[in-house]
Amino acid sequence: MLQRVDVRYTRKVEDVGLENPVLIEGLPGIGHVGKLVADHLVKELDMELVVEVYSHHFPPQVMVLEDGTIRMPKNEVYAYKSDGGSPDLLVLVGDFQSVDNEGHFELVNAYMDIAKNFKVSRICTLGGYGVGKLVEEPYVLGAANSSKLVEELKSYGVRFESGEPGGGIIGASGLLLGVSMLEGIEAVCLMGVTSGYMVDPKSAKAVLEVLMKMLSLDVSIEALNERAKEMEKLITQIKEMQEAAMQQWKSDEDLRYFR
Amino acid sequence: MLQRVDVRYTRKVEDVGLENPVLIEGLPGIGHVGKLVADHLVKELDMELVVEVYSHHFPPQVMVLEDGTIRMPKNEVYAYKSDGGSPDLLVLVGDFQSVDNEGHFELVNAYMDIAKNFKVSRICTLGGYGVGKLVEEPYVLGAANSSKLVEELKSYGVRFESGEPGGGIIGASGLLLGVSMLEGIEAVCLMGVTSGYMVDPKSAKAVLEVLMKMLSLDVSIEALNERAKEMEKLITQIKEMQEAAMQQWKSDEDLRYFR
Amino acid sequence: MLQRVDVRYTRKVEDVGLENPVLIEGLPGIGHVGKLVADHLVKELDMELVVEVYSHHFPPQVMVLEDGTIRMPKNEVYAYKSDGGSPDLLVLVGDFQSVDNEGHFELVNAYMDIAKNFKVSRICTLGGYGVGKLVEEPYVLGAANSSKLVEELKSYGVRFESGEPGGGIIGASGLLLGVSMLEGIEAVCLMGVTSGYMVDPKSAKAVLEVLMKMLSLDVSIEALNERAKEMEKLITQIKEMQEAAMQQWKSDEDLRYFR
Amino acid sequence: MLQRVDVRYTRKVEDVGLENPVLIEGLPGIGHVGKLVADHLVKELDMELVVEVYSHHFPPQVMVLEDGTIRMPKNEVYAYKSDGGSPDLLVLVGDFQSVDNEGHFELVNAYMDIAKNFKVSRICTLGGYGVGKLVEEPYVLGAANSSKLVEELKSYGVRFESGEPGGGIIGASGLLLGVSMLEGIEAVCLMGVTSGYMVDPKSAKAVLEVLMKMLSLDVSIEALNERAKEMEKLITQIKEMQEAAMQQWKSDEDLRYFR
Repeated sequence: MLQRVDVRYTRKVEDVGLENPVLIEGLPGIGHVGKLVADHLVKELDMELVVEVYSHHFPPQVMVLEDGTIRMPKNEVYAYKSDGGSPDLLVLVGDFQSVDNEGHFELVNAYMDIAKNFKVSRICTLGGYGVGKLVEEPYVLGAANSSKLVEELKSYGVRFESGEPGGGIIGASGLLLGVSMLEGIEAVCLMGVTSGYMVDPKSAKAVLEVLMKMLSLDVSIEALNERAKEMEKLITQIKEMQEAAMQQWKSDEDLRYFR
Repeated sequence: MLQRVDVRYTRKVEDVGLENPVLIEGLPGIGHVGKLVADHLVKELDMELVVEVYSHHFPPQVMVLEDGTIRMPKNEVYAYKSDGGSPDLLVLVGDFQSVDNEGHFELVNAYMDIAKNFKVSRICTLGGYGVGKLVEEPYVLGAANSSKLVEELKSYGVRFESGEPGGGIIGASGLLLGVSMLEGIEAVCLMGVTSGYMVDPKSAKAVLEVLMKMLSLDVSIEALNERAKEMEKLITQIKEMQEAAMQQWKSDEDLRYFR
Repeated sequence: MLQRVDVRYTRKVEDVGLENPVLIEGLPGIGHVGKLVADHLVKELDMELVVEVYSHHFPPQVMVLEDGTIRMPKNEVYAYKSDGGSPDLLVLVGDFQSVDNEGHFELVNAYMDIAKNFKVSRICTLGGYGVGKLVEEPYVLGAANSSKLVEELKSYGVRFESGEPGGGIIGASGLLLGVSMLEGIEAVCLMGVTSGYMVDPKSAKAVLEVLMKMLSLDVSIEALNERAKEMEKLITQIKEMQEAAMQQWKSDEDLRYFR
Repeated sequence: MLQRVDVRYTRKVEDVGLENPVLIEGLPGIGHVGKLVADHLVKELDMELVVEVYSHHFPPQVMVLEDGTIRMPKNEVYAYKSDGGSPDLLVLVGDFQSVDNEGHFELVNAYMDIAKNFKVSRICTLGGYGVGKLVEEPYVLGAANSSKLVEELKSYGVRFESGEPGGGIIGASGLLLGVSMLEGIEAVCLMGVTSGYMVDPKSAKAVLEVLMKMLSLDVSIEALNERAKEMEKLITQIKEMQEAAMQQWKSDEDLRYFR
């Protein structure tokens, strides 16, 4: 039985033992900048899986892995117990955003619930800001749910440009900031400026550097280029195949309506 | 936790102390005539925020303000305590109508609930009636949920043309009239005739003048032109950016479907 | 407060005093043949309104009438107490079918509930069967939820052609037959063959004649031509205007997304 | 009253008396390979209907049969009590997959519930894998929810190609594998490689042969060609008619919006 939004803790919150962690969100989005940074953190810090989220708002399919086994689409939360220099961390990564309007809100409600269970001190959402052309020197655009946080972000070199991003912040990255504001939880969004045409390790590096300043954290960025290449390859490959599969599934729709 | 339709009173109804107020609705719609009039009233009368409405039926995003802080999409109700000449007022303004069919009904249920809590004596919804060409001398087209009200509106110069608007009245402006009729609450709709191509202060002025007659109210219309210009500028700007953002988000959709 | 499917009895079932009536459904559909016949019956037999059905599954709008008053979209059930020659009747008429997939099922559940409250003996759904070309001599195509009923219909001149209608019967006319079968209630569908391009009084006449045989009923068909003409005029007019209004509402969508 | 997902047992589970049956799913999908195999099994083994599933997630219509009677769209589960050589079987066949995203999940929850009530030992979903060109020598591509099962499938000649199917497995065939994994139930998917352009008895034969090995079952494949031809004819015919009906229903949409 899979609930509409199905949150499964793989470890008890009290056993994980984090102290007011910072929650970092890096779900799929523009240029996959946020996802690249968040996946990188999970691997570099060897983080531990603590929550899995399944949902009726994800596409109705399973992925087939290299070895022929399958995997349900899901999002995951990983935990990092700091040795003291930086705050404890939770990282929200995964396969999908909601495919429908209401699902975005229901999933963000679930993420907020997880955040509150872990008594997070702050939420930091990551994303890309696509400008539609190649970006030589990527920088990080910011948004926050209080003026105090805007000032703090500026001290890390985050830029704030009047009226940017004009279209607002779409999806989980945006809603987490908004709902956090209503709940009285500090939240910021870091958007790496990028073309939007491909996975962009340079943009990810810019975001990661701000994040390291904010968290007094030090992780290697070496693997970032490699990871971006792999992700790009995977995306190209999967896109082609998925398009083919989807096309067929759709052209087959009439066939489905009969007995 | 954000409910599907999330109504938050910022003040207790009894503390606001209105006596059978008239509720004026001016949500986004054709030509933004209704919104322009309602926003104008809130500012000119220096009205007080009393209710906020959030919803899963709004787009899943936050707006970024000039200073880098964010704002959840919401609709709001403002209160005006009259000094006696006119009735007390409630004004419903905001960012969005529902993005899906059922949401319109759920939101209107919520608005009606607010109206009943404040014991409104009448509901007046505002909108534009687009004719697809420039209108030299805008006038106000009316509709009401009783014949008695139709006659009253005529006495303010509101026009009733057989079979107009033929397509009925869509969205909150229409449904509020309909549900009010079922609940036995007086309700009228004032539609400023407009091209529909831009924010139209002339049309808004025509609506405002009828409204002032109906409410024995006197507010300056000077700022209306200014406000329309600002709104127009804002719309153009935001439209361009939002289109860009949406396009990217969509062109990115395939990218989102993988890990 | 308007429920998702909001059924309001204007008279108590026991006060209406029908004895195992036949329920006739004539909601909007192909060629409006069913609607024309059902509306005709309601008027010719001077039937009495007994139930109103409102729903979140109807379009979010109100209609504006000739005199400037408005009307909520709704479907209605009318009652006819026979003087003995024919069975008592209930006729389901109205403005809309559901605008979404699930709504069709929820509304049909509501109609079935009404039918069971009135202890109907049989359900007869009316519709058109469009063949895409002018039909000189319209006839009536049938379907039923038992072989016994198929035979009965044949005795009234109803035709059954193998594999027609191939696409099945869509909407309330179809689902009422199907759900009735599961509930053990007799149900038939009468489809007047028609071009599908316009309201077709000839086709309606063919359906009405079968209906009169089935119900041992005698109503004048004189007004049918007149009624079709009026309906056609109304449709053309409303279609034009609604298209205009909808187009504007949609072209205005970007405008709605801002404050 | 038809529930959103309406599961009706035509026989009590304990009366059917199966012992840890294997559940085989063959709902409509790519090339109808799975459906062809499953329907074939139900007929060759003269299986007994034990569960019917109706749903608001199916299209809102009924089918009209050759004799003029109608049939509600439904999926069905059939039971086969083995005489010992092979495991007991349940076969899930039917008319439709969900027409909306969430419905896929709700229906799969229902199928899993049935599977658990019958204490299934394994689930085997069947489908086609369309390659967009004629396939001379069809073979069977596999996926499974454990490495052990992948190995077992290989022993039956099932192929596993790295990164195939790249688009994952869409619909009930995929989700059943995924949810089974979460529930700790063994599940495999057999996909007959096919063009995807037509019902493909050759591909179905390949799938059936694997299935027979897996189940130590022996059924004639003679009727498969015949059945494919009939199914193809039926599909062509129904597609044409349904397209016509749908087109008309849609072109008629404006007509529906008025009274």
